[in-house]
Amino acid sequence: MTQDIKNFVLIGGKRIRPILFYYGYLTAGGRNKKSILDASLSIELIHDYLLIHDDIIDRDELRRGRPTIHKRYQKFYQKISIDYEHLGISAGIIIGNLASAFGYEILTESNFPDSFKTKALKKLSQIIIGVQAGEILDVFLRLDHPLKEKEIFKIIKYKTTGYSIEGPLQLGAILAGANQKALKDLSNFALPLGNAFQIQDDILGMFGDPGETGKPVGGDLREGKQTLLISKAKELANKKEKKIIERTLGNPRLTKNQLKKVRKIIVKTGALDFCQKTVTKLINQAKQKMENSKSPPKIKNFLILLVDSIIEKEK
Amino acid sequence: MTQDIKNFVLIGGKRIRPILFYYGYLTAGGRNKKSILDASLSIELIHDYLLIHDDIIDRDELRRGRPTIHKRYQKFYQKISIDYEHLGISAGIIIGNLASAFGYEILTESNFPDSFKTKALKKLSQIIIGVQAGEILDVFLRLDHPLKEKEIFKIIKYKTTGYSIEGPLQLGAILAGANQKALKDLSNFALPLGNAFQIQDDILGMFGDPGETGKPVGGDLREGKQTLLISKAKELANKKEKKIIERTLGNPRLTKNQLKKVRKIIVKTGALDFCQKTVTKLINQAKQKMENSKSPPKIKNFLILLVDSIIEKEK
Repeated sequence: MTQDIKNFVLIGGKRIRPILFYYGYLTAGGRNKKSILDASLSIELIHDYLLIHDDIIDRDELRRGRPTIHKRYQKFYQKISIDYEHLGISAGIIIGNLASAFGYEILTESNFPDSFKTKALKKLSQIIIGVQAGEILDVFLRLDHPLKEKEIFKIIKYKTTGYSIEGPLQLGAILAGANQKALKDLSNFALPLGNAFQIQDDILGMFGDPGETGKPVGGDLREGKQTLLISKAKELANKKEKKIIERTLGNPRLTKNQLKKVRKIIVKTGALDFCQKTVTKLINQAKQKMENSKSPPKIKNFLILLVDSIIEKEK
Repeated sequence: MTQDIKNFVLIGGKRIRPILFYYGYLTAGGRNKKSILDASLSIELIHDYLLIHDDIIDRDELRRGRPTIHKRYQKFYQKISIDYEHLGISAGIIIGNLASAFGYEILTESNFPDSFKTKALKKLSQIIIGVQAGEILDVFLRLDHPLKEKEIFKIIKYKTTGYSIEGPLQLGAILAGANQKALKDLSNFALPLGNAFQIQDDILGMFGDPGETGKPVGGDLREGKQTLLISKAKELANKKEKKIIERTLGNPRLTKNQLKKVRKIIVKTGALDFCQKTVTKLINQAKQKMENSKSPPKIKNFLILLVDSIIEKEK
């Protein structure tokens, strides 16, 4: 099963978190590049842990272009047990937990002062608490009521920004001994970037090429996720269009034709345009915040360039 | 959902792990009783994390005399969604992960030197890796073949001893700055105690009062767990008796009458007697090891007394 984790880590993914972890360290003046690279594996393993569990929760069948872990085990056990569905989920829970423990272990063993490490380990726990809180909001609130824009941004803050952008940057910075002010500067940069990253991801989820994204198209719609894109389309749609969206939202048996219709509505209402413009605005905000920060000029310029590449990698 | 964790922690359980965590600290000469008590909550939360996930994996419906977390949420969602079974499991996965992150966080925040804390956090991760490895052996090996006695003791070592006895003792000792020799002494004491604890637990699982144990009687049999008790009975049984055991092992629809028959076989073959004698032998071994250790006499005597109370609490 550790082999599963190894394969899962090695087949790819965007590596945004370890990259930000690395540059967060450099921003705060860290110089031990070998040690921070080694330590950055911890955040990637924690990411794998949460992805493996998320894939169970969201019933996803593909991840990084391959079967998700629980699906792989379901297929394996199908040959030997009638209880294969449950066994696959059980394997996914355990393998996720192993990835989590390995992620923590790597950080405890990393080559940094103990005082920085305990601070980073505390931060790591808080990041996980945040992303699980975001997951609760995401999965369970949507059963309750249509989300307001404010709620959508709150979910993004917990589920994406804290975890994928702000968290990794701050973890790296903490390992370089960054002070509160420096951590705050990174937050100010991370918040608009995280929002841009998520909205861009939502756009790709509806209009992207599954061959490139590694995820089935329309997945958010099928799972009933209320992204900014979908919520904006509903807001701008006429009665008939709104009904079409509502009928498809959360329908696991969504047809290609239905998906096509919803896409058309998203374009026609201007929701796509609105979201694309929002991404551009947020990216510029993030760059401006980094420009004004106290980071070393070389790293600052690099992070400003990185903004485009993070969003571009998503394109 | 944090309320769920609070309720789950507060409704009881034997608290063996925080107690051993506390006395592990005292054994190694620690004196800050207030801080070690606070820190001991971490191991209890990690225990809750793994219990909540285990209950999903084992499909347990009762824990500490109340519905398990995923069952509770399944009941809750039954009113509002046809997908309630999956939603309950999802809630259990997330709530378990939250308990884990809280457990780690508490340890990072505890009032001990950073160098001791990072060592303890590393050990904690290794304990979790061990228990998940034990869970893999336990759940997946038994699908493959009947376990040999050696394999059963290996599973006990990972799944019970490392996690419930040795781990908590060593974690506490590490927070007092214990050296390798002191940690090894604790291992020597923990190994027979862990074996005794697990075998006693297996006996209770077949013959105990569910009102006292909080678990449904015969659960191990229903789940197909190959405990020493069941494996010994199979070894000592005649052909007809062996067939009865094999037919009931792993049968989720086990009847009261079938359970009664298997119990009779366990008594008649002498498997129960064998296991009870093994528990007594192991308890004496553990006491002897503690007697010969270098721990302070007062703590040593206390831990020797604790052995009986750990096993007695199980009675």
